[in-house]
Amino acid sequence: MLRTNTCGELTIKDVGKKVTLCGWVQRSRDLGGMTFIDLRDRYGITQLVFNMETNAALCEQARKLGREFVLKASGVVAERSNKNAKMETGDIEITVEHFEVLNASLTPPFTIEENTDGGDDIRMKYRYLDIRRNAVKQALELRARMATETRNYLNSQKFIEVETPVLIKSTPEGARDFVVPSRMNQGEFYALPQSPQTFKQLLMVAGLDRYYQIVKCFRDEDLRADRQPEFTQIDCEMSFVEQEDILQTFEGLVRHFFKAVKGIDIASVPRMTYADAMKYYGNDKPDIRFEMKMVEMDNVVKGKNFKVFDDAELVVAICAKGCAEYTRKQLDELTEFVKRPQIGATGMVYARWNADGSLKSSVDKFYSANDQKMWMEKMNAQQGDLILILAGEKSKTRKAMSELRLEMGSRLGLRNKETFAPLWVLDFPLLEWNEDSKRWHAMHHPFTSPKPEDISLLESNPGEVRANAYDLVINGVEIGGGSIRIHNKELQKRMFSLLGFTDEDAQAQFGFLMNAFEYGAPPHGGIALGFDRLCAMFGGSDSIRDYIAFPKNNAGRDVMIDSPSKISDEQLKELGITRTDTGKN
Amino acid sequence: MLRTNTCGELTIKDVGKKVTLCGWVQRSRDLGGMTFIDLRDRYGITQLVFNMETNAALCEQARKLGREFVLKASGVVAERSNKNAKMETGDIEITVEHFEVLNASLTPPFTIEENTDGGDDIRMKYRYLDIRRNAVKQALELRARMATETRNYLNSQKFIEVETPVLIKSTPEGARDFVVPSRMNQGEFYALPQSPQTFKQLLMVAGLDRYYQIVKCFRDEDLRADRQPEFTQIDCEMSFVEQEDILQTFEGLVRHFFKAVKGIDIASVPRMTYADAMKYYGNDKPDIRFEMKMVEMDNVVKGKNFKVFDDAELVVAICAKGCAEYTRKQLDELTEFVKRPQIGATGMVYARWNADGSLKSSVDKFYSANDQKMWMEKMNAQQGDLILILAGEKSKTRKAMSELRLEMGSRLGLRNKETFAPLWVLDFPLLEWNEDSKRWHAMHHPFTSPKPEDISLLESNPGEVRANAYDLVINGVEIGGGSIRIHNKELQKRMFSLLGFTDEDAQAQFGFLMNAFEYGAPPHGGIALGFDRLCAMFGGSDSIRDYIAFPKNNAGRDVMIDSPSKISDEQLKELGITRTDTGKN
Repeated sequence: MLRTNTCGELTIKDVGKKVTLCGWVQRSRDLGGMTFIDLRDRYGITQLVFNMETNAALCEQARKLGREFVLKASGVVAERSNKNAKMETGDIEITVEHFEVLNASLTPPFTIEENTDGGDDIRMKYRYLDIRRNAVKQALELRARMATETRNYLNSQKFIEVETPVLIKSTPEGARDFVVPSRMNQGEFYALPQSPQTFKQLLMVAGLDRYYQIVKCFRDEDLRADRQPEFTQIDCEMSFVEQEDILQTFEGLVRHFFKAVKGIDIASVPRMTYADAMKYYGNDKPDIRFEMKMVEMDNVVKGKNFKVFDDAELVVAICAKGCAEYTRKQLDELTEFVKRPQIGATGMVYARWNADGSLKSSVDKFYSANDQKMWMEKMNAQQGDLILILAGEKSKTRKAMSELRLEMGSRLGLRNKETFAPLWVLDFPLLEWNEDSKRWHAMHHPFTSPKPEDISLLESNPGEVRANAYDLVINGVEIGGGSIRIHNKELQKRMFSLLGFTDEDAQAQFGFLMNAFEYGAPPHGGIALGFDRLCAMFGGSDSIRDYIAFPKNNAGRDVMIDSPSKISDEQLKELGITRTDTGKN
Repeated sequence: MLRTNTCGELTIKDVGKKVTLCGWVQRSRDLGGMTFIDLRDRYGITQLVFNMETNAALCEQARKLGREFVLKASGVVAERSNKNAKMETGDIEITVEHFEVLNASLTPPFTIEENTDGGDDIRMKYRYLDIRRNAVKQALELRARMATETRNYLNSQKFIEVETPVLIKSTPEGARDFVVPSRMNQGEFYALPQSPQTFKQLLMVAGLDRYYQIVKCFRDEDLRADRQPEFTQIDCEMSFVEQEDILQTFEGLVRHFFKAVKGIDIASVPRMTYADAMKYYGNDKPDIRFEMKMVEMDNVVKGKNFKVFDDAELVVAICAKGCAEYTRKQLDELTEFVKRPQIGATGMVYARWNADGSLKSSVDKFYSANDQKMWMEKMNAQQGDLILILAGEKSKTRKAMSELRLEMGSRLGLRNKETFAPLWVLDFPLLEWNEDSKRWHAMHHPFTSPKPEDISLLESNPGEVRANAYDLVINGVEIGGGSIRIHNKELQKRMFSLLGFTDEDAQAQFGFLMNAFEYGAPPHGGIALGFDRLCAMFGGSDSIRDYIAFPKNNAGRDVMIDSPSKISDEQLKELGITRTDTGKN
């Protein structure tokens, strides 16, 4: 090694040792007759000191070093007169005897500090400099740690890690595939996996019993903020299990993560049905760090000639504790908030129970103090509380109220990033109706098993059939989901048929799986967790991008390497394809 | 869980327990009044027993179960009268009280036994059945174990696991890329990585110091036997190192593998220069499980009017210990062997030192007994030995002799699969001349650093420049290779220029890397090990295919899922490409 030690490990115990360190110039300070250089590597920062009096020539050389120069410096560990308790190495410094510039550096395009002055675009273009910043480096270290803990836990539970192929087959169900033209089989294409779903099921048919993989998956979708065309999931499958076994096994993983990475004991992961999640939180991934449940008010608000409520399919309210003092301006802000197009409410009604005991609402014209008293009772409100009411079409109103609830949670400081509230959401519908295609779509995927007691409804009332499916939600973010799978060929055929597949299509695309079901497929089920999102959650960030070493931008472009890019005509010709745009090879 | 225990864990200690097992019917035997079923799962086999006398109805049902039916069986653990010492569970059996068929099975297309009657094609098509066989299952378990041990070791050495992108950029240097058309950037393509080479170097520029990844890589090459279009490598990079540091670190990994997986202590990994490997073994990946070094005979054979030797650029021999008794037939076989087109020798000369002390060669006409005595001395041969001589153009003759040496090693039983001889091959040439393209090609890749003492020869005598490059060879198989990299922009530019890149091409394709070198790139180097091959080696197999869960065949086709396959016109249209074969979208 070019060094004897890293920049993160020397302490007062090492005083007097001769050492050689390598690293980058973080900063340089000239103080009278002394020059101090903070030398940085992955492990920390160590102060180098040069003295004009004892070695003027060396000190002069040191004064010429710019930020991010790469040095190899040798000297003696000395106790600092001016200790820095914030640094691991803050008690010592290196009295440098000689050094070598291993590489020079241009001035970086942004400061390499905890908080940088660089914008997103420039930091992405120079990602290799951005990663030098502590925040990004630590995000990548956390990710590696999370991967290790995932493997530690799953290995201890007898899961076996198996790599499934990346060059697979395109299927029209689900999102859009990335495809790879085959040169050896011209006119044919591989597809990149959106998930290893069918392969992990085949591994269960193969008897591997418990499988996992931390695996790259791919979706060619129009990117929303914080979506990546390639993403990583923790993919798992188990045989001879019922839903309860999977919930317990992966509750174990969640508890392991929190204990190992955060030092937090999670008592247990509560469970909620999809129906309750929709009713009380207005969405299928409730943030249960705080209560403020939605209450349906129809039976206490209707029949008083307030047309908005009378005509509404649903009238729903939340109670904001201690917010009766909200100003007109604050209430207007909330009304504006719910009327934004992405929220879509037409208005908001409020009612306050003032500190003096009086009641006041925005609909006093229609509702007496007594009426409002009943609302307060219904809401379990107390003096000093504010209730906020939305009304309209059921699913839209729930969605809008869900957003309003989250907004109020944020305003009231109830959504602390260092508080964690994991939750299982259960009993999802198996199917959802799609108005565009005028057919039922699988809510999870076509391999999800219906609940046995609902199978008889499959053809007669598909919308009522519940799935043996579950989502893992943490702090209102969907971290993962899975299901017990169909392991019976006939049921799988019924499912494909419900989804509008002809027998021929089903056979052409999933014949290998249905055939496999004829050779002793065990009951099985599994789960997949979004690894990028999980890491961001544990890192306390809303953005997954810093938890990915080399992310792509919203146009699916890697701006650092400038990809995608044109390829040569020769390459296209070998692949037997032509670009439509030019008509040329 | 549907079971209380697995099929691999019940022993004599469990006698009397009520248990429930799940698994597959491995075989079924009716012996008079009893029926025995071997129930198999991933963990082992447990014998189920049914008794006609005590429960005729259940026994009748059991007799109807076919191979590979999936059962859930409950009963009591009983001591066997007829114990099977070969099985972990061989002391007990389960007296079944009731069972349930979880799934039926058609008769499998091949027997699911240690040695199957299924040919390669059928086993690949029904890979999920093939994996049920112990041999394949254990291969996948070994692979998972090797991955775990890789991570254990590298984590302990402070390597950090980082995922690099799969959708990257096509570059013409190296093998052919698989490409992925971009829908959002029409007319442009991503490429799948042949290795994360540039990314891992950027991670070093980023200061991550020690990186690794067990990662899928892709090459669109015409497949030879046992080549896969997607393969896995253990990819590593370190900063502030010299070649010696990398050799020691990865010798540590090799020793860890052997100790942890095989229980073998490897004393140390010997080293050999490329030049010596070529001279003494005729190739750059010597199998050093056995000696039989090649000896250059030119100075003792020339000048005796034997034209074949006199005209040869090289005359080289090996000594086959104790083979003087080889029959005419055996010698003819060897001559035929070296004359095969893939070996390419024009003939073989032998000389034997018989047990009675006499000397006999196939060229007695030209060489006296005294001459041959000198050969024997030169070869360090003893009475009873046979020497085999090839002559001709140097590199062809070396290659042919290398093959003959391996053949003799095999014939003499010197290549035991359970003996392991790892070796570092060092000091590879930096460049090799390519007759087709009439230019120098990088022997490893364009980022490999020349040895500092040879840099001055780069333009004047490129063929003599040695690289700071090394290969890890085990038992004559190249398991991995790497190098110290160039970390200086100017040297990298010189390298690209030597390889025939214009400045513009170099900038367009690798500008991001050369730019990165301007911002404080540390000295760095690394290695990549072929993980599929490594696993096969540790599993004692010549074929990597059983160590890959879902391999592709030699035409790059997954015959199980039938991929690659046609995609829809709509998909092609969205991607902005047309198939050349049809001219249609």
